[in-house]
Amino acid sequence: MEGEPISALCTPALVLDVDKVKINAQKMIDRYQKLGVQLRPHMKTHKTLECADIMTGGSRRCIVVSTLAEACFYADHGFDDILYAYSLPFDKVERCAALSERLDLFQVLLDHPDALELLRKRPLRDGRQWHVWMKLDCGNGRAGVLHSEPGALRLAQDIAKTEGVELTGVYAHCGNTYGCRGVEQIHAVAQETTDLTLQFMEKLKAVGISCKSSIGSTPSCSHPVKDMAQLSEVHPGNYVFYDVQQSTIGSCSLEDVAVRVLTRVIGHCPHRNQLLIDCGWTGISLDGAGKLPTGYAVIEGHPNLKLVSVTQEHGRVEPMSGQLDYSRYPLGSLLTLIPYHSCAAAAMHPVYHVHSGGRLVGKWTPTRGW
Amino acid sequence: MEGEPISALCTPALVLDVDKVKINAQKMIDRYQKLGVQLRPHMKTHKTLECADIMTGGSRRCIVVSTLAEACFYADHGFDDILYAYSLPFDKVERCAALSERLDLFQVLLDHPDALELLRKRPLRDGRQWHVWMKLDCGNGRAGVLHSEPGALRLAQDIAKTEGVELTGVYAHCGNTYGCRGVEQIHAVAQETTDLTLQFMEKLKAVGISCKSSIGSTPSCSHPVKDMAQLSEVHPGNYVFYDVQQSTIGSCSLEDVAVRVLTRVIGHCPHRNQLLIDCGWTGISLDGAGKLPTGYAVIEGHPNLKLVSVTQEHGRVEPMSGQLDYSRYPLGSLLTLIPYHSCAAAAMHPVYHVHSGGRLVGKWTPTRGW
Repeated sequence: MEGEPISALCTPALVLDVDKVKINAQKMIDRYQKLGVQLRPHMKTHKTLECADIMTGGSRRCIVVSTLAEACFYADHGFDDILYAYSLPFDKVERCAALSERLDLFQVLLDHPDALELLRKRPLRDGRQWHVWMKLDCGNGRAGVLHSEPGALRLAQDIAKTEGVELTGVYAHCGNTYGCRGVEQIHAVAQETTDLTLQFMEKLKAVGISCKSSIGSTPSCSHPVKDMAQLSEVHPGNYVFYDVQQSTIGSCSLEDVAVRVLTRVIGHCPHRNQLLIDCGWTGISLDGAGKLPTGYAVIEGHPNLKLVSVTQEHGRVEPMSGQLDYSRYPLGSLLTLIPYHSCAAAAMHPVYHVHSGGRLVGKWTPTRGW
Repeated sequence: MEGEPISALCTPALVLDVDKVKINAQKMIDRYQKLGVQLRPHMKTHKTLECADIMTGGSRRCIVVSTLAEACFYADHGFDDILYAYSLPFDKVERCAALSERLDLFQVLLDHPDALELLRKRPLRDGRQWHVWMKLDCGNGRAGVLHSEPGALRLAQDIAKTEGVELTGVYAHCGNTYGCRGVEQIHAVAQETTDLTLQFMEKLKAVGISCKSSIGSTPSCSHPVKDMAQLSEVHPGNYVFYDVQQSTIGSCSLEDVAVRVLTRVIGHCPHRNQLLIDCGWTGISLDGAGKLPTGYAVIEGHPNLKLVSVTQEHGRVEPMSGQLDYSRYPLGSLLTLIPYHSCAAAAMHPVYHVHSGGRLVGKWTPTRGW
């Protein structure tokens, strides 16, 4: 279907504006080149080779992944310097060892002494070292050793002195930027995460340990504070697509969002003042529920429409106010959804349709599973 | 990995108890054989060949699907008598025509005169007829012509008299049973849907039209009312797995649920009184949010645990009351989630791991997309 307009696609369909993808990727590359910080883009939003190529500027080096399936997928396709930034899962140590022994540089992450113990018990072949990032929780409240705990420094020291293991870096995810509204609040969280990370690096230095540092999240990396220049790396991911959530946070404008879900009107329900569309939660995901005045997505060009509910293959659309003018929405007509959360919407699609200026230029196939 | 215990799986993993699947399927087959009504099982929950085999008692005939991708997948693998029970999508008419011309019996569904007009404009080759079900909305409030509208009878008559088109049946989905609690309420909705459908069949008879009738939903078909014996077909789907939602509605007991998501503890967070598990919304889906006291799922064997939040690859678990005893949940230990909505959880998995009595017996691969 290359060369055809995106309107020729059967729906629902996830479409990517490749020009916006490239612009979003290049802006991030330029921003961190200027700041003198290594950009290690996260693959979790798209999980495709093509987009990884764009995000790494073609180098196929220096990426971060959220699943071991992604790590293997990229390793199998010539990528290297891969950081599997997920608290070392005890069931996957052997697979991690295999990647460590096969790639130039495969890096794992941990936040508990028991995980370190597992690595110690599985020395790598050929005198190779486990490359380990320690995850620090700087206020995000998910994974990581809490920055304020004495155990954090102790664990870092233990990693550094364990035979066969190298403390590669300290990694903090500032997902707490997702609660921000506007650049000022983003800056505040970015500053706090940076400060706490750099303070921890100082503590390490005081005990004779030096290693890399990395923080990340799309909001903070889209609006870095000056002190982030003192970090070794940053690791944002969602920015390559962006989404409505990111525009609400203040990471981007709605015009920067590279992803859409195309859908068609399949029903008129005048007795309920509703339209039915052929996109349910298998097409747009359940993310966004209750978070937007326009429901599960923004319906592009129709600010008065709301996607009020989704079931497996159906969406119900109604006007924010007034009566629907059905003549504007004949059966079969296209509507364009801007996803609330592009990671969640993309995860529902076995293939992404890529266009430039509305003309199809190809298909990208993500990897799935773990 | 056949023969190994399910605990050997890397997590998260969706596991199916094949014995429960078979029992659930057989009970439904027996129930409708006894009632003298044709069971046309719905494939939307699992989308696999193996489960379709079990649900059709090995006949590979008489199924219903929610997407054209499912229709093609089953057609490509020797299934026939397929009903694509989705308001005829205007962008897929040609693909529907191809299936109609290729299979012994491919059936479509519509609820609008414009859709009928599309079929009229695309006569099938070799003197074949379009087999058309008309969707009737008997109170579910999603797709279908409203039963009380005069246009419903008119559309049925128009289908019946259109050249090249046959009115195969009248189809009602009683998804409004999902609001029920207990068998009495399920019976009330089943009775109402049956009554309205049969009344419509009488109206058709009065104008000289006879065709099939079908209603469906897992709650109503798990607890049929006597009058359902007067229907031609029923079309439930979820029952083959069931889930926590169905047990809450009263369709089944929690013991009947055939599906689980296995997950492992990957973090201890005593400062938050929480555990982290390796199952986020990519493993369990976002369905269930706010609907269960135990959060996004039921954690089997741990009634005091709640899955309070999920992000892409992480779940946060905390006790309903009291302090977590971390010694009960060492890093790497397995937890078993019973999904709130099995259709939604299954949709997140590229493969299902099938076991009998806890020993792996195979893998089933679903189809995806549209």
